[in-house]
Amino acid sequence: MLENLREEVWKANLALPRNNLVVETTGNVSGLDKESGLVIIKPSGVNYSTLKKEDLVIVDLEGKIVEGKKKPSVDTSHHLYLYQNLKDVGGVIHTHSPYATMFALLEQPIPVYSTAHADIFGVKIPCTPYVDNQADHIGKAILRCREEGCPAILLGKHGLFTFDETPAKALRASIMLEYVAMIAKGALELASVLGVNLSAMPSEEVEIWYARHHGGGYGQDE
Amino acid sequence: MLENLREEVWKANLALPRNNLVVETTGNVSGLDKESGLVIIKPSGVNYSTLKKEDLVIVDLEGKIVEGKKKPSVDTSHHLYLYQNLKDVGGVIHTHSPYATMFALLEQPIPVYSTAHADIFGVKIPCTPYVDNQADHIGKAILRCREEGCPAILLGKHGLFTFDETPAKALRASIMLEYVAMIAKGALELASVLGVNLSAMPSEEVEIWYARHHGGGYGQDE
Amino acid sequence: MLENLREEVWKANLALPRNNLVVETTGNVSGLDKESGLVIIKPSGVNYSTLKKEDLVIVDLEGKIVEGKKKPSVDTSHHLYLYQNLKDVGGVIHTHSPYATMFALLEQPIPVYSTAHADIFGVKIPCTPYVDNQADHIGKAILRCREEGCPAILLGKHGLFTFDETPAKALRASIMLEYVAMIAKGALELASVLGVNLSAMPSEEVEIWYARHHGGGYGQDE
Amino acid sequence: MLENLREEVWKANLALPRNNLVVETTGNVSGLDKESGLVIIKPSGVNYSTLKKEDLVIVDLEGKIVEGKKKPSVDTSHHLYLYQNLKDVGGVIHTHSPYATMFALLEQPIPVYSTAHADIFGVKIPCTPYVDNQADHIGKAILRCREEGCPAILLGKHGLFTFDETPAKALRASIMLEYVAMIAKGALELASVLGVNLSAMPSEEVEIWYARHHGGGYGQDE
Repeated sequence: MLENLREEVWKANLALPRNNLVVETTGNVSGLDKESGLVIIKPSGVNYSTLKKEDLVIVDLEGKIVEGKKKPSVDTSHHLYLYQNLKDVGGVIHTHSPYATMFALLEQPIPVYSTAHADIFGVKIPCTPYVDNQADHIGKAILRCREEGCPAILLGKHGLFTFDETPAKALRASIMLEYVAMIAKGALELASVLGVNLSAMPSEEVEIWYARHHGGGYGQDE
Repeated sequence: MLENLREEVWKANLALPRNNLVVETTGNVSGLDKESGLVIIKPSGVNYSTLKKEDLVIVDLEGKIVEGKKKPSVDTSHHLYLYQNLKDVGGVIHTHSPYATMFALLEQPIPVYSTAHADIFGVKIPCTPYVDNQADHIGKAILRCREEGCPAILLGKHGLFTFDETPAKALRASIMLEYVAMIAKGALELASVLGVNLSAMPSEEVEIWYARHHGGGYGQDE
Repeated sequence: MLENLREEVWKANLALPRNNLVVETTGNVSGLDKESGLVIIKPSGVNYSTLKKEDLVIVDLEGKIVEGKKKPSVDTSHHLYLYQNLKDVGGVIHTHSPYATMFALLEQPIPVYSTAHADIFGVKIPCTPYVDNQADHIGKAILRCREEGCPAILLGKHGLFTFDETPAKALRASIMLEYVAMIAKGALELASVLGVNLSAMPSEEVEIWYARHHGGGYGQDE
Repeated sequence: MLENLREEVWKANLALPRNNLVVETTGNVSGLDKESGLVIIKPSGVNYSTLKKEDLVIVDLEGKIVEGKKKPSVDTSHHLYLYQNLKDVGGVIHTHSPYATMFALLEQPIPVYSTAHADIFGVKIPCTPYVDNQADHIGKAILRCREEGCPAILLGKHGLFTFDETPAKALRASIMLEYVAMIAKGALELASVLGVNLSAMPSEEVEIWYARHHGGGYGQDE
């Protein structure tokens, strides 16, 4: 059980550079084992190209190291805060993926400009104001600013978190957020040079796409 | 025969991520076997990295599953609408490739700015107004707005479809559309910062390039 | 001798997609064997991923096919025009590499903004006005507009040619031109949003860099 | 000892193209062996794809070749100037990585817009005015304009240098600088089209991130 989660967390960490979501060591994935209340997380400052499955660190929900020879990510306390406060969350990812981070540097949300955004997120991607990395500042800002049901949030001047039922689902949210940010920036630029307007989709239209994607019609039964 | 088509549809699906036309599971390719009237299409929500040839689903032109253990793409009805209504179409592709989608988010066509665009498409890439995903709304909008002879169309707020005699030819149209959209956006931006004008090619010049490319002089005899 | 040239032309063709200078089949490399007056060139419309060394076509300087089962590139006559009219040219490349083509679509040259540009080219990259693909229109426009000593030129609304002593050197010019165009566009955009000016380097400064790079100090003795 | 350094310098050179920091031969890495006072550096104009460990050149701090059959980089004198004048520097890298170079072409620094920038660099990335490549002009400009403690600097109209305790650390600075420049440019563009302001982080906030990253809490004990 814990070993399956370790495998999933390890694979999701390796997927970050492969999907151009991180450079160097600037991101981390964790997963929560609900039964035992233990969290498996990336060690701090270890390159993805050399990251071994057994390098992952197991901590309890208070952050005490239960297993592992390495120090856990410096962002561990933010991951734990989300597990403690968000019911149903079993996977958390933190990155500074470039296009999403461009919106974050302006402390601006990403409106729903595209059906792909509507499909996956169903609402705008919110952005917290800037907070520093001390104590529970980041966790609290996320809880205060997140959109109910939306597995992604931008952090002002900083980057982003995604959180979902599993590490694999949080990874999907991270990949789709970066895509959605890229086409949003591009469409805004194109609107500017063409002298036309880019408008957000009306919420009743957004709902049609979100419902199709999440209502059981999309994907295979598991 | 059907097995050759299955191979071609499978390979075209795998070419989508390799050519940066999709992220995650956001695209699909189908092919029509004219003799039997059967359509082979990607299953819904299956990642390209794990997609096996035998995962592809065979449906008839009314959408009834004839073979396959998985559910077909949620976009299947749009593919079928095109096969039912467009003579000579034997391959259909739907993606949200990023640069083409930037124009789609503005509900703007892509004028013929380059000889590469003239070579392949011969006319502007049209864009439908936004329609939702219900019933035949997408198929009807494509039929109403497409340019005769042009194998590509943008969908407002959404993405794009390409359709051609074979899945391989529809793939070529998808790759070239994304390239054409990328250089069109870049040239518009450059025109803006240089303070010069970007003009579309006159149609009589477009015709010279299109004729050379499609008149039998280009490529090898098959 | 001809076999060495065939190897070099083949490798340079394969380098085009690897360096993101082409999509699909939109580019071609040729080489001239000075002794025999024969030219080895890519066949028309053949994908780089399946291009075999023996697919290359050998033509004489009038375009008569001397060896090969495939049709040569539709751009063969433009290559031949350059070999006929430019002394010392032994390699020619035609592409629509995206950043260089953005300048071409505006029929604008690329000024010397960077020491990398000065190193390799020593002058601005000129751009011909738009010409069609008939007869010797492209070749003549290149001869009329090129900068003496500069192995690269943009073609209005179209793309670019590079030409140098060997196919390998023409490839280097193609790669560096795309890089130079990319940073030129980016710096122009950044200048615009920062409200500062981007000025071309004075020609006496350009000369210092060009002389170091071409004066025997750079690279290894061959 | 010298062989370990050779391995590290070789690997850091190969990492330049893999991280999209160079095209062709436009970059070089060196390392200093403090004990012997010898410097290992890339040979001039050799492609990374064919660079062998034994191609690296060993020079003393005055530039005399001590070992190696090839000519050292034309930038060797600039590397040596930094080793001679900057205590604790054991690795130097010169590139024209594209996004950082866009700022350099404008002779503009990169302000601290992001926590990632604060983490790694702690201050703005400064930019020297343009200088030519003669004598010690580049080295002197770097010394005059660098920010104390910051391992990176832009060179007006040219590119950049990074310098740190080891070649591996200088490589990390080069990778992070390019990332920081990319998101800075993107956020400036997005600010312009959204009509909002992009402000630099206050220095007391920058300090919080820098201290966490450099204060022993980040990464593994070595």
